[in-house]
Amino acid sequence: MSDAVELGQRPGRGRPPRYSRDELIAKVVTVFNERGYEATSMEDLARATGLNKSSFYHHFTGKEELLGLGVGRALDALTAVLAEPESLSDRPAQRLEHVLRRTAEVLLSELPYVTLLLRVRGNTTVERDALHRRRDLDTRVAAMVRAAADAGEIRADIDPRLATRLLFGMVNSITEWYRPDPSRPSPAPDIASAVVTLTLHGLSTQPAP
Amino acid sequence: MSDAVELGQRPGRGRPPRYSRDELIAKVVTVFNERGYEATSMEDLARATGLNKSSFYHHFTGKEELLGLGVGRALDALTAVLAEPESLSDRPAQRLEHVLRRTAEVLLSELPYVTLLLRVRGNTTVERDALHRRRDLDTRVAAMVRAAADAGEIRADIDPRLATRLLFGMVNSITEWYRPDPSRPSPAPDIASAVVTLTLHGLSTQPAP
Repeated sequence: MSDAVELGQRPGRGRPPRYSRDELIAKVVTVFNERGYEATSMEDLARATGLNKSSFYHHFTGKEELLGLGVGRALDALTAVLAEPESLSDRPAQRLEHVLRRTAEVLLSELPYVTLLLRVRGNTTVERDALHRRRDLDTRVAAMVRAAADAGEIRADIDPRLATRLLFGMVNSITEWYRPDPSRPSPAPDIASAVVTLTLHGLSTQPAP
Repeated sequence: MSDAVELGQRPGRGRPPRYSRDELIAKVVTVFNERGYEATSMEDLARATGLNKSSFYHHFTGKEELLGLGVGRALDALTAVLAEPESLSDRPAQRLEHVLRRTAEVLLSELPYVTLLLRVRGNTTVERDALHRRRDLDTRVAAMVRAAADAGEIRADIDPRLATRLLFGMVNSITEWYRPDPSRPSPAPDIASAVVTLTLHGLSTQPAP
């Protein structure tokens, strides 16, 4: 599919809309998130985009390919965080802090794609591949948590796997309530900073018991 | 409905199963969580329990009433936490710590009911009532967080509403991965303690910047 194409006209609707590939995928991901991937038909996608079904099938093999493109965008962005220079710092706790902050930022900037990814349950090849890539990311982050505990830079009295689950459980839960306000500058850095401060330094002003 | 009744026989299946009211609701909640509430029919519930549909309708008005009983159990248990003596302590941070720990414990001990509650989206009266009760709990806990910040017992540089969302986002995320192991004693206290330690005192062993 080229960068901007007319995807075919629905009967009686006048000029068909033109979408870039990214715009089309964004629209499709919105429909998947609203209706649920399982419940969405190609007819639903055609209605929501004003394109016709046969145009979709001309450019994509079906809704599974569209799902793969949507969750792929989230997975690529999350994977890229682990390749950033600060994620390779000498200090394990600094690596962890960077990954935590940037994962929260990516979740906020790529909200619809990460939301879709977090709902994937593994019923198709595309979904199983996505879950596999997610698990691979989890394993790499859990290794970072373990390295920071081994280095004495984070507390060792919480199992690293449990700590990883709780940390990213908090980060992922942001998708449940965060809705960007187009009229205001993004509060994303504030939210990401709150996650880092809360999980690394704690809410309490009293010394730990 | 009495405490243990024969709810009617499915044709050709021999003696019908006997359930207490609680056992029946537990089975129904499992089916709702597996298939999704929307996608579950009374026929599905009949098949899963070995009872017949007309028996269900004799005892319940329909699946909405069953949903109300399931999420009601979670809401009653979560509401009861706020009435425990330690939730009324003089020290705001102690109240918050108790509510955080006990909410995590209730989530773990009432896992299927809380899981069902967290998936409620508000399409029916029962669902809207459940969301209303959930929001009421959130408001009461957010007030506790604010009181602890005002008393200087927790840091004031994270907005109390954001802190509340992040705290309970972490707690609620436990439903995504925790599956009780019937062969081992419950790790629930460990998980709840990890949540309290991580969120109040932080993972880092270094002083806060």
